[in-house]
Amino acid sequence: MKKLDGELPHIQSHYEDFHTIDWQRDIARDRMRHRFIVKRKHNSIVELLKSTHDAWSGWLCVLLVGISAGAVAGVIDIGAGWMKDLKDGLCPAAFYLNREQCCWSSNDTEFEETLWTDHCDQWKTWPELLGLNEKSAVVGSFIVAYFFYILWSLFFVSLAALFVRTFAPYACGSGIPEIKTILSGFIIRGYLGKWTLTIKSLGMMLTVAAGLSLGKEGPLVHCACCIGNIFSYLFPKYGKNEAKKREILSAASAAGVSVAFGAPIGGVLFSLEEVSYYFPLKTLWRSFFCALVAAFVLRSINPFGNEHLVMFYIDYTRPWILFELVPFVMLGVFGGLIGNIFIKANLRWCQHRKYSRLGQYPITEVLVITLITSVLAFPNKFTRMNSSDLIKLLFTPCGIADEIPLCDYPRNFTNVNEHIQIANAGPGVYQSLGLLILALIFKLVITIFTFGIKVPAGLFIPSLAMGAIIGRVVGVTMEQIAYNYPKWWVFQDACSNSGESCMSPGLYAVVGAAAVLGGVTRMTVSLVVIMFELTGSVNFIVPLMTAIMAAKWVGDALGKKGVYDAHIELNGYPFLDNKEEFPHTTIAADAMRPKRSEPPLAVLTQDTMTVDDIDCLLKSTTHNGFPVVVSRESQYLVGFVTRKDLGLALTNAKRTSEVFENSLVLFHGGHVSTNPAPHAPEPIKLRRVVDLAPVTITDQTPMETVIDMFRKLGLRQVLVTHNGRLLGIITKKDILLHLKEFEDLDPESVLFR
Amino acid sequence: MKKLDGELPHIQSHYEDFHTIDWQRDIARDRMRHRFIVKRKHNSIVELLKSTHDAWSGWLCVLLVGISAGAVAGVIDIGAGWMKDLKDGLCPAAFYLNREQCCWSSNDTEFEETLWTDHCDQWKTWPELLGLNEKSAVVGSFIVAYFFYILWSLFFVSLAALFVRTFAPYACGSGIPEIKTILSGFIIRGYLGKWTLTIKSLGMMLTVAAGLSLGKEGPLVHCACCIGNIFSYLFPKYGKNEAKKREILSAASAAGVSVAFGAPIGGVLFSLEEVSYYFPLKTLWRSFFCALVAAFVLRSINPFGNEHLVMFYIDYTRPWILFELVPFVMLGVFGGLIGNIFIKANLRWCQHRKYSRLGQYPITEVLVITLITSVLAFPNKFTRMNSSDLIKLLFTPCGIADEIPLCDYPRNFTNVNEHIQIANAGPGVYQSLGLLILALIFKLVITIFTFGIKVPAGLFIPSLAMGAIIGRVVGVTMEQIAYNYPKWWVFQDACSNSGESCMSPGLYAVVGAAAVLGGVTRMTVSLVVIMFELTGSVNFIVPLMTAIMAAKWVGDALGKKGVYDAHIELNGYPFLDNKEEFPHTTIAADAMRPKRSEPPLAVLTQDTMTVDDIDCLLKSTTHNGFPVVVSRESQYLVGFVTRKDLGLALTNAKRTSEVFENSLVLFHGGHVSTNPAPHAPEPIKLRRVVDLAPVTITDQTPMETVIDMFRKLGLRQVLVTHNGRLLGIITKKDILLHLKEFEDLDPESVLFR
Repeated sequence: MKKLDGELPHIQSHYEDFHTIDWQRDIARDRMRHRFIVKRKHNSIVELLKSTHDAWSGWLCVLLVGISAGAVAGVIDIGAGWMKDLKDGLCPAAFYLNREQCCWSSNDTEFEETLWTDHCDQWKTWPELLGLNEKSAVVGSFIVAYFFYILWSLFFVSLAALFVRTFAPYACGSGIPEIKTILSGFIIRGYLGKWTLTIKSLGMMLTVAAGLSLGKEGPLVHCACCIGNIFSYLFPKYGKNEAKKREILSAASAAGVSVAFGAPIGGVLFSLEEVSYYFPLKTLWRSFFCALVAAFVLRSINPFGNEHLVMFYIDYTRPWILFELVPFVMLGVFGGLIGNIFIKANLRWCQHRKYSRLGQYPITEVLVITLITSVLAFPNKFTRMNSSDLIKLLFTPCGIADEIPLCDYPRNFTNVNEHIQIANAGPGVYQSLGLLILALIFKLVITIFTFGIKVPAGLFIPSLAMGAIIGRVVGVTMEQIAYNYPKWWVFQDACSNSGESCMSPGLYAVVGAAAVLGGVTRMTVSLVVIMFELTGSVNFIVPLMTAIMAAKWVGDALGKKGVYDAHIELNGYPFLDNKEEFPHTTIAADAMRPKRSEPPLAVLTQDTMTVDDIDCLLKSTTHNGFPVVVSRESQYLVGFVTRKDLGLALTNAKRTSEVFENSLVLFHGGHVSTNPAPHAPEPIKLRRVVDLAPVTITDQTPMETVIDMFRKLGLRQVLVTHNGRLLGIITKKDILLHLKEFEDLDPESVLFR
Repeated sequence: MKKLDGELPHIQSHYEDFHTIDWQRDIARDRMRHRFIVKRKHNSIVELLKSTHDAWSGWLCVLLVGISAGAVAGVIDIGAGWMKDLKDGLCPAAFYLNREQCCWSSNDTEFEETLWTDHCDQWKTWPELLGLNEKSAVVGSFIVAYFFYILWSLFFVSLAALFVRTFAPYACGSGIPEIKTILSGFIIRGYLGKWTLTIKSLGMMLTVAAGLSLGKEGPLVHCACCIGNIFSYLFPKYGKNEAKKREILSAASAAGVSVAFGAPIGGVLFSLEEVSYYFPLKTLWRSFFCALVAAFVLRSINPFGNEHLVMFYIDYTRPWILFELVPFVMLGVFGGLIGNIFIKANLRWCQHRKYSRLGQYPITEVLVITLITSVLAFPNKFTRMNSSDLIKLLFTPCGIADEIPLCDYPRNFTNVNEHIQIANAGPGVYQSLGLLILALIFKLVITIFTFGIKVPAGLFIPSLAMGAIIGRVVGVTMEQIAYNYPKWWVFQDACSNSGESCMSPGLYAVVGAAAVLGGVTRMTVSLVVIMFELTGSVNFIVPLMTAIMAAKWVGDALGKKGVYDAHIELNGYPFLDNKEEFPHTTIAADAMRPKRSEPPLAVLTQDTMTVDDIDCLLKSTTHNGFPVVVSRESQYLVGFVTRKDLGLALTNAKRTSEVFENSLVLFHGGHVSTNPAPHAPEPIKLRRVVDLAPVTITDQTPMETVIDMFRKLGLRQVLVTHNGRLLGIITKKDILLHLKEFEDLDPESVLFR
């Protein structure tokens, strides 16, 4: 049997920027490296330790990634919380405390933050600090508060935009489309670097605090991936091997969602369903571990400061009734519709930005959006508050003692332990619903323009907020129907017997939130699990699944792509989608290069080319590699050499031995077939740089099979043969071009750079 | 561009029993069929309807599968519940009611089943029916109850064993190893048939009711897959295409777990992590939908009769404290250890059964196991009760009013609303712990012998029960430590201040159950989600993940395979594991046939063979297919023909046209290259049966790459070439044989049949 494991072979590992990686090759390199280490482990204690370290380095790396991701998320949560409150006021006793902590430190230990009436003496709002009393100078303090709100927002956002522009242009946006592309095997240098991490973390705090309609969940996934990338360089196994590094990145993105929502399992599934391209079981386990560690670290930091460790803890005791499936499906349909409207409008706006002069003034655009957002958001209490707080408010059922307008039900409170009675909605409720609908329209419109500006911006929280609003509105409507027509047969069992409330508007908000997020991202299983973990309740699995499925169906019927895939296409990233089917009937011969009109492929012959010929070939072409054939006449395929390996090997040979321009270069192990000319120099043997096992297909192979092979095997190119003779080559780029041809698009204009 | 979509091509679809399917080919066939339908949809309304039906048939099929799976599970639950109670007694008023329903129908509407003290007048135990009073004739009624318990068990089990033996031998065991094998692309005729479904459902009720140490979860997955298989025949798209059918089966297995545990998301993940081989996103969505429908139908039937819809609803309010991670990890280690002991011992026993005379007396074996189980189980209250009830009991924390010995804490009950105080354990607790440890030993030993007998038998419930016992024992121990040393620093914050109980032994039982099941099956993410959905609580995600991860690590360190993979290996199924890495350095040339000493490969030449030559070749060989080469001398590869297609095409040609023994057979589209002899008959053109795009590799391809291609592309064979010339062939069986060679096993003895 042939030895492959003697010396560590020196196949080049590095790829150029914006190039596609060759998974097969990278994985093969890793296996060789692994064998090399295993073989030597019996030699000495040091080698044994090395081997042990190597075996555990994957787990160790994801452990470190998990710890750091948890810590970074904790810092961001704390920072964003503090800055968010800065818009409202200051803690004069200790400026570094946010409102909640400030009030903790006051004597009022029983302080409980309710979203509408919180007030404590320690915390001073800006009007108060300027000497205005909110009760006597109502208009004055409103204007001062308004002014400070806008001012701080503009200040935060301009800082964020400046940072992004100056230090890390890659830190803008949600990052998920790019991470999907990177995980599918593309190289974008610096996208996951330390500067991106720093600026994105900072920018995220600033933009979230500024009250823009965006979330920090997508960016947190990007940050976690940056952390994964940075730590992978501690372990050469991962740092020096792009395919292996992507295993760490998959785990890191799981950790990102894990800390964003406190949802470790949801994170693993998000990585599986939405982000990752290859997700073998080993990566699943590592992601699981990474997400666990990250969630644990974040729990220890406890930035939310509550016991339940879930962002939007709900506690509905009443099970749903069968008829409610109808409004749940309706919410799903709404979700699919809104998701589609959002994607289409946002895409059109992004396209406009890309190709018009607007794209040249990113900072101005950011500031204008911020100004509009803060001016319009402040007057409406529901948009003024942070989106997370809004979601929490809408998810929460009306308690006995709630006095906010949304819970304005005329109820008699005789006993705190009594069940909450169903009741007619008071004017406060209707007023709140009106404001909520205004808030929905505002959020939908502003988010379309916000997602894509040059600051860190995620989509999860705005989508959830929109959905929660729709859900709450539908929920209150249903509740009032049930109150007014309790004898209607659909409510018969649940509502008519007791006066107990038989509808939870909060549950509708949860379902609606899931539906809109599902419509926007087209997630399914991972979204259900994220909703579980977000709300801490598994009782409502069927409603959630129903709505999410409906949202997905409606969404897919109106437009195939989720928002991330749409942005990948918009940016022209070379992403070969796993989900899409190839509906055409072309064969490999149609997609391969050279086309019929083009000159034949540049090839190497195995034993008739001289150094001069090869130098010439290298100079006259720009291909990344060359097939090796038996002879120019027969074209029988021998193997494949990458440009990089060939160039290095030739340079090496020129340096170490006597090489003349007319020296023959042999790419096979045997002897020269033609008789050498007398006095010909010694031939150079370059067999070891030839990949003798290139992936080949025949020219009759259907393109869907070819695409399938590219997807599943992670190929960079295949060689096309007919009856053993080389005909051409298909690279990943050729496939993407071929796909674009069918869409009647000018291929050159859409492919990345 | 070449037309592939004119007529529907008649490539044969059917495989022989115990053969491997060719995914690429099947998927290609489906694409052609799909295109054919899409192309014709504009012709008429009927065609349009056909096309619409085709587009939705996948969803429709999983809908039907989900509904049926839910219904079957409901029937099984109800039937098993009734038979289980039959061992105890009868409802004389209405024999068809189980104890709970019997007591419902009595006036005692406030009846609440507590596991130790339930008693109602309507329900008569066997001693009572025979006129013995349980209070006066203690010994007599004990003996009568004991006797009836054994008798009914033996009766149930002998029925089950007889059914299995007579009607459906495939209905025995858990079925998951076989389903894994089938989903990986193997054909086992009748394994998913209607008889298997009927007998397995019936047998499952009987064996579960008999009180054997087995569960109905694995068998339910098998039943769901049977349903999937049966319904797929309603849709030719799936029924006639083995690769497509497996998409339905993946969804069905998700539905199986969904109804087994009321865990739809857990089911999807189980299908993904444990059962399925290929799990594209489309299958994920279908599985999700199928599991949802099944869970919904089961919920409507509501066989558990409780509101929460979860089997083991827990409601711990107290969060866990950091130090508890130590015992949780310990539970994980226990789980890994027990899982390993179980797998090794069970495997050895199954091996013994397989190769000794024991295997010839399956019914006797079943009866002996049943006799031993029932004789030993009855005296111990913890083993006498159903395993599910035991798990429920152990998961439940001790309430205020619990009077069972396990909750024998001397507490003062002054106020029902007060928090439960931590307390010293009374003698009842210690006695219960002793019984529990006995139950654990009994269950471990008897399950080793039970799993593998010739009746339907799953492993989930016994594993959970063992784990719950260990967990509860550790939990009570921890609780008592915390009670006796409240000032110890690890308990400082949580336990010392208030007298409130700071440890939940029930939580330990949950974690322990997950750990042992994790140790036995090596599931990770899916297990966590199943535990969520089983207990209805997401608050304990970190404890669960920690214990499961520890169990997996310990388990994997001691033995690589989970119980299902171990059984696949034991039975020698041709399963190419996705998880295992190939550590050797062989290349394709080492694994291919013909070996150096063997005669050359039987090939077809493209234009020099006569009908007689081919008939001869077909008779003299048994290969499933033949490569087509340019000429016997050059061996340049043209394509591949399967034996079936070739035989059929020849027969067809002989029937429809004038064919002589010396007629040339052409496998290419062009003209005959050699000059035909004068008066030679017209050649037959068989180009259309040739697969012109066979998958080829070079002889230098490392075997790990070859294995990777087989796994990811679902290949049946690859052709091995060198410089374009055909050298040999590698089939899936060759790869399995090659793998076995390294394990020093006689390959022939281990491969299936």
